[in-house]
Amino acid sequence: MKINPLKGMKDYLPDEMRLRDYVQQSILSVYRASGFERISTPMLEDAENLDKSEGGDNLNLIFKVLKRGEKLEAVLQKGDEKSLSDMGLRYDLTLPLSRYYAANRASLPTPFKVIQTDRVFRAERPQKGRLREFVQCDIDILGDDSINAEIELIDVTARALLTIGFKDFTVNINDRRLLHGMLESMGFEKGTLSSVCISFDKLDKIGVEGVCAELSGKECPTCAVDKLKCFLDSGECSLERIAQCMEDKTYAENLQRIVDTVRKLSGGKYNIAYCPSLVRGQGYYTGVVFEIACKDFSGAIAGGGRYDGMIGKFLGQNVSAVGFSIGFERICAILMDQAYQPPVARKMALLYRDDADFAEVLLKAQRLQGDYAVTVLPQAKKLGKQLGTLENAGYAAVAFFDNEDVKVLGKKD
Amino acid sequence: MKINPLKGMKDYLPDEMRLRDYVQQSILSVYRASGFERISTPMLEDAENLDKSEGGDNLNLIFKVLKRGEKLEAVLQKGDEKSLSDMGLRYDLTLPLSRYYAANRASLPTPFKVIQTDRVFRAERPQKGRLREFVQCDIDILGDDSINAEIELIDVTARALLTIGFKDFTVNINDRRLLHGMLESMGFEKGTLSSVCISFDKLDKIGVEGVCAELSGKECPTCAVDKLKCFLDSGECSLERIAQCMEDKTYAENLQRIVDTVRKLSGGKYNIAYCPSLVRGQGYYTGVVFEIACKDFSGAIAGGGRYDGMIGKFLGQNVSAVGFSIGFERICAILMDQAYQPPVARKMALLYRDDADFAEVLLKAQRLQGDYAVTVLPQAKKLGKQLGTLENAGYAAVAFFDNEDVKVLGKKD
Repeated sequence: MKINPLKGMKDYLPDEMRLRDYVQQSILSVYRASGFERISTPMLEDAENLDKSEGGDNLNLIFKVLKRGEKLEAVLQKGDEKSLSDMGLRYDLTLPLSRYYAANRASLPTPFKVIQTDRVFRAERPQKGRLREFVQCDIDILGDDSINAEIELIDVTARALLTIGFKDFTVNINDRRLLHGMLESMGFEKGTLSSVCISFDKLDKIGVEGVCAELSGKECPTCAVDKLKCFLDSGECSLERIAQCMEDKTYAENLQRIVDTVRKLSGGKYNIAYCPSLVRGQGYYTGVVFEIACKDFSGAIAGGGRYDGMIGKFLGQNVSAVGFSIGFERICAILMDQAYQPPVARKMALLYRDDADFAEVLLKAQRLQGDYAVTVLPQAKKLGKQLGTLENAGYAAVAFFDNEDVKVLGKKD
Repeated sequence: MKINPLKGMKDYLPDEMRLRDYVQQSILSVYRASGFERISTPMLEDAENLDKSEGGDNLNLIFKVLKRGEKLEAVLQKGDEKSLSDMGLRYDLTLPLSRYYAANRASLPTPFKVIQTDRVFRAERPQKGRLREFVQCDIDILGDDSINAEIELIDVTARALLTIGFKDFTVNINDRRLLHGMLESMGFEKGTLSSVCISFDKLDKIGVEGVCAELSGKECPTCAVDKLKCFLDSGECSLERIAQCMEDKTYAENLQRIVDTVRKLSGGKYNIAYCPSLVRGQGYYTGVVFEIACKDFSGAIAGGGRYDGMIGKFLGQNVSAVGFSIGFERICAILMDQAYQPPVARKMALLYRDDADFAEVLLKAQRLQGDYAVTVLPQAKKLGKQLGTLENAGYAAVAFFDNEDVKVLGKKD
């Protein structure tokens, strides 16, 4: 039998899980204290729902589950190869949330401030830092069309990151409608703007030349692509300058209010900046989009935005929605690289001899629990060697069933 | 788009999740304090591993994931329908743990005391209390062939159940080798004993007649089936009586030592009893098996046993292994039925008017956090009605941005 996990998937060792659990619980405690409530949805979703979900490139990365029994036989007899699957593993938590809200709205408050943190699946080409199964950690506010929703999500997410030790990060923010307005003013056609934005979002990965090549490939007007190239080559661009291209100033004004309010909330512990080139990959975003970048690490450590159209696909009527997702895997990888030690109970071993009354051993271990997580282990003949092994395995102390000694193991720093 | 979760799967509302998270964290804290360490494995496993895993009937319930891209095309061209899938969703946490241990043993301590709590999947015919996606909550001790492993797992699991309010439960215990010895002495053939046990385990569901009919269907000797029927009809049977049928008394003596030691550890808070008909469904158990029953509820709330052969399938050499799994879904369902209120932070709403400085609103909310989880909400025109709505939604208190009032909402008991 094969002993390695499947390609792109990962076994987590106890030390990694201790960190992951600590990070997750720390984030959850900030979210919960701020009145967000956790829900859970199945890992599997209906295939049709997934197909229609505007997930961009993620739709090509869905793990599909094979039909079973009579349904599968019927498909095979017909030779209907496209119908082999009727469900798939979710590729994000936003589609399931939208379905969930549509199904359960009668039992949910308005606005609904919700936490989801769980696994999602994408059949990516495996590469460093890109797993096929990974944890997302999202908060969303559903049913609030004011910019207070964006502000609150940014405030809570930033405070969660501060709690686990991240600092000097920047919240980059944009509004897709501003970007659309700008692109339209450059000569891109209205119907193609979402597609243009998806290419535009790859700026970090494929550069200005790459984006322009992709847009030319999509048969966008050459003059528009040239203007965009010019704009991108010219570097930064102020919110005021963009606002001038727009007839309706509301989007720019609201974005400015979000920036000002978050700046006040940050207390100088983090930054927020308007980022005219920010798009975010997903097709479903309709307005403000944001992500968090940390100067010490490339790429974003959190991302989100407003997706007012998604729930309407299920419900027939639109419900305003904004979400912010912490890149849980990214953050854990950074903390692991820093050899971050989560502040959890230290490990103690209680050693006992073969002839000990094992009930009494376990009862003594219970009495020692509290400051320590206490594991009972048979005492080895060579105690010195055993103590060395325990120290290397991260034990902070050793106690003995026979006597009241507690030996604190030296730190290896 | 379809708004309901897939058949046999479930959306969890905030109140349910609050309970589930509390139960899980309570169990985890007992496990961790006792020196067990959490790990995590992927939801998906290699199809061949799953097929060879001796999971009994569960092997018919695996959700298989469709191959993709070129691999799928190749299979379809060949018309090789049996190879449509090369991975599947795990049906339990024991197979992944065995693979994990084989893959990571160089980094793991001996004995390895491990926690797993996560989702598993079985394509069961949906019925009340049987979900197709559900959470298992397991502890295992790998690499300890002494009965101390069984004793420790029973002690820790029982204390976890006590912590979340279960009491007056009974740990039923047996050893498959005793059962095998008894069956052999009745005339069942050695090579058929595992298969006989799988039928035998259905005693609760299909009764004595059903078990005997199934065994006759499996072409077991009629005289053996008759003797078994006689034995089952005669009711209880002591460990001493069984020991008399066995040449090797070790299994019976060890079982008695486990019973005696656990009885001492229980401090009278729960019971332990030898149960000669206990089998447990999985094919992979090799020795002691146990489950926990609670007189107020039918069926088991936890189950486990020794499975010394499983890791050897991956590693080529056997590693002793014992596990105990709490029926997390069962326990949460019982607590929900009892309207159990987990002791977590109560909910407070901080109400603000449209013209409030939203940064100041969020800062005030932060100051109120601690005893309460504080959510900010716009104040409605009809305050009385809003307070009623908040009370119904489970809020314990309301504060106001405008003033320092805190209104405690009456309990509906």
